[in-house]
Amino acid sequence: MNTADNGAASADAPPGYTTLKTLDRGFVRLVGPFFLHDERPVLATRITPDHLNSIGIVHGGFLATLADTAFGAVLRRQLSLPAPPATASLSVDYIGAVREGDWLEAHVDVHKVGGRLTNASCLLKVGERLVLRASGIFVMSVPGTR
Amino acid sequence: MNTADNGAASADAPPGYTTLKTLDRGFVRLVGPFFLHDERPVLATRITPDHLNSIGIVHGGFLATLADTAFGAVLRRQLSLPAPPATASLSVDYIGAVREGDWLEAHVDVHKVGGRLTNASCLLKVGERLVLRASGIFVMSVPGTR
Amino acid sequence: MNTADNGAASADAPPGYTTLKTLDRGFVRLVGPFFLHDERPVLATRITPDHLNSIGIVHGGFLATLADTAFGAVLRRQLSLPAPPATASLSVDYIGAVREGDWLEAHVDVHKVGGRLTNASCLLKVGERLVLRASGIFVMSVPGTR
Amino acid sequence: MNTADNGAASADAPPGYTTLKTLDRGFVRLVGPFFLHDERPVLATRITPDHLNSIGIVHGGFLATLADTAFGAVLRRQLSLPAPPATASLSVDYIGAVREGDWLEAHVDVHKVGGRLTNASCLLKVGERLVLRASGIFVMSVPGTR
Repeated sequence: MNTADNGAASADAPPGYTTLKTLDRGFVRLVGPFFLHDERPVLATRITPDHLNSIGIVHGGFLATLADTAFGAVLRRQLSLPAPPATASLSVDYIGAVREGDWLEAHVDVHKVGGRLTNASCLLKVGERLVLRASGIFVMSVPGTR
Repeated sequence: MNTADNGAASADAPPGYTTLKTLDRGFVRLVGPFFLHDERPVLATRITPDHLNSIGIVHGGFLATLADTAFGAVLRRQLSLPAPPATASLSVDYIGAVREGDWLEAHVDVHKVGGRLTNASCLLKVGERLVLRASGIFVMSVPGTR
Repeated sequence: MNTADNGAASADAPPGYTTLKTLDRGFVRLVGPFFLHDERPVLATRITPDHLNSIGIVHGGFLATLADTAFGAVLRRQLSLPAPPATASLSVDYIGAVREGDWLEAHVDVHKVGGRLTNASCLLKVGERLVLRASGIFVMSVPGTR
Repeated sequence: MNTADNGAASADAPPGYTTLKTLDRGFVRLVGPFFLHDERPVLATRITPDHLNSIGIVHGGFLATLADTAFGAVLRRQLSLPAPPATASLSVDYIGAVREGDWLEAHVDVHKVGGRLTNASCLLKVGERLVLRASGIFVMSVPGTR
């Protein structure tokens, strides 16, 4: 697996964040970069014009992408997994608009790590302002089944 | 609003589809192109390496993006809106993997168009194979309120 | 397991429905009776004053209960299970009000039966009027794990 | 509106809780009683055999009912509404089993109160053990529209 040389501290992120490693090509590479906090369960990004929808605010699909990627990155690190667990379900409520230039943070809360399923929630914030609530169910890898 | 010259029939899409118009820059431009069926409530796309996650299947965020964009495009056309309605909630269940080269279709079913909220569901399919189920709640624009 | 003598055709239900078997005591016994269609994947009930909320329409919790019970009854019959599978996730969108005296039907659509998870959707209708959309994820029983 | 004389402190609830007022007849009367904490945004109940499903744990519909009722009771009190706001959407993830005799608490967190929609989450706990995560979207009453 050829990973890009993008693990260094980024000039775009506040201290304490490291660029999330990605493949040379793929969806996170296309829409990122994303930044994982070195200690807290937080994945963040800086909003650019590439993230906006036709009325000039961030596209709901990008917000869902950040939430899903945050779940995966946090669970992978916390559970020492070789890859993020597969998402079985993602529920997202849009609460506030996000705009170009915003520093957007996804704060993950892992509720339960089970033998078969893991449950977690996530809040997306710009500063102290809540802009999205998400929850997800994740399938823990067991050889031989779905 | 400067729209790109991408409304022509695309060589990448089967007959009956037209490229979804996008701004010169923005999230749909970044992750697309998407193709709207001329008559049926279907938005589709061809999967490229840019849509994949770290284990080589399509990223859940891209699938959520296609579903959300399909809801917006279909509702906008069906209700003759100037822009897609705002998404209040999106619920997505991941059912099967999608791979590079797949032609992926999002079939939208509008349940109810209300004065304040609109409800719709969406099924994503590769051929006859169901890969995702989504539902959404959309806020109908009323001047002066959220 | 002591099941009540309530499997006979009910005077309250249209032809083609049979009362859903319940224990002598339990939640379905308390809030029902529910009626399972003999051939179609439909569970139905007649609304009484006991199902209403403080403003005189059916309580959202009862509607969620009918949807969840419909998923369980239909999956149990379709898959010949000894008991309904455990619900991992339930998502419900409320679309229209239901009132005393209404005959309320839950139409289940099973999307995929997997080795670990099963996906299904459900539409609740009064006659042809759609009042609720639900989807669920269900855990297939595997000895020894959650 | 004829409300029952059930507002007194209940012998079944710990100190600090008051029985949620209900109509003489209705769904909350049927499946309750529920107890609202006098200060904290918590609605609780004691599990009886009437709440169980066919395998002897609490029915998912009852848990959804407690969550939905908790959202309504907390929002009604916090916003001084004449009635609970209408639920537009409810998403529930089942995390752990609940059993007869358990004291079950629903802890509500109101994310945003908007002019048209309100967002909230809820965690159901038995002691410190998390058994369910819920989120909801609620329609704020505006005369003349849905």
